[in-house]
Amino acid sequence: MIKLHHLRIGRSVFTAWAMEELGLDYNVEIYIRDENRRAPPTLRHIHPLGKSPVIEDGDLTLAESGAILLYLIENYDPQGVFAPPVDAKEKALWSQWLVYPEASGFLPFFLTLLLSMEEKPKPPVIANYANADVTLHLNYIDAQLADNPFLLGPEFSAPDIGMTYLLELANRVGQLSDYPRLKDYIDRMMARPAFKRAQDKTGG
Amino acid sequence: MIKLHHLRIGRSVFTAWAMEELGLDYNVEIYIRDENRRAPPTLRHIHPLGKSPVIEDGDLTLAESGAILLYLIENYDPQGVFAPPVDAKEKALWSQWLVYPEASGFLPFFLTLLLSMEEKPKPPVIANYANADVTLHLNYIDAQLADNPFLLGPEFSAPDIGMTYLLELANRVGQLSDYPRLKDYIDRMMARPAFKRAQDKTGG
Repeated sequence: MIKLHHLRIGRSVFTAWAMEELGLDYNVEIYIRDENRRAPPTLRHIHPLGKSPVIEDGDLTLAESGAILLYLIENYDPQGVFAPPVDAKEKALWSQWLVYPEASGFLPFFLTLLLSMEEKPKPPVIANYANADVTLHLNYIDAQLADNPFLLGPEFSAPDIGMTYLLELANRVGQLSDYPRLKDYIDRMMARPAFKRAQDKTGG
Repeated sequence: MIKLHHLRIGRSVFTAWAMEELGLDYNVEIYIRDENRRAPPTLRHIHPLGKSPVIEDGDLTLAESGAILLYLIENYDPQGVFAPPVDAKEKALWSQWLVYPEASGFLPFFLTLLLSMEEKPKPPVIANYANADVTLHLNYIDAQLADNPFLLGPEFSAPDIGMTYLLELANRVGQLSDYPRLKDYIDRMMARPAFKRAQDKTGG
């Protein structure tokens, strides 16, 4: 059975959510952040970067949310709940949105989070960089969701998981007040029964 | 024929490199950064984020280096030059290293680059975060390369492309002086004939 190493509170609840959507049975090992909100050193015994999510499946130890999601889809999705599109170009766009929340999408929102922890005056180069890109990225995502309830159309798909993670981060740093559609989207995603079960099982 | 939108100087030379390793024929459209090193607005007509690499292939416009690489491997690699491992667990680790340079690997080095542009005193939260993680990540990569000339063993594979990008960024911000093995690795990667051809074709 897959074991999920989960650092509370953190993004690995989204990996648990993916497993819940797939109907998988899995164990959770919970780690608590120290007073500086860093991961405890015990996580480094599991994977050298000491981050979470990490899963163990037999003799495989696997990090990186995107790689874990691909592994689950390729090996633990017999019903095709998260099967990627068959058409090569649709699949390419599926991959683009699957990797985006951890690749180019992540940086502006995480910078905003780090900047919120700095005293004033805020470092101008980083602040300018983050501010310009936050608007750019939110408009990009907002346009993608303009005509559909889910990221890739009328149906929930694997890229909705990472996108919810990203927008939840944006919301936490106060970036969604001018984006009611994005706020509504994460509310709908996080109201899914599978997300609730993942929260219950991991403690959030 | 695939068209690569390439912002000089930038990471899309690594997409060109992948196409050269695959023996692909492709066109390059070159964009020049403005005086602030930002992309020109014309790139936003191609893709809303206005970044590069972006490829066009018929009616497909695709961003995100990782997604582009997967698309090339799945559709333009008849010889299996970059075919992922068949074994499910080996493939999982292949995916982990494929997404890593743009996911958790990217942040500490890019933060170091941004910090280098800030006046002193450097913002302490961000500086502490970056410094701790740079060492962690370099040690992680160094250990992975300890026993093999390439990231995943005795043979060059697709994850070597992103890793060279990441380590070249680390090198540019002066982080590799204590890591001769990593310096040697990027020297070997960038001496590959396919990399040289990509540089020639894109202007770097």
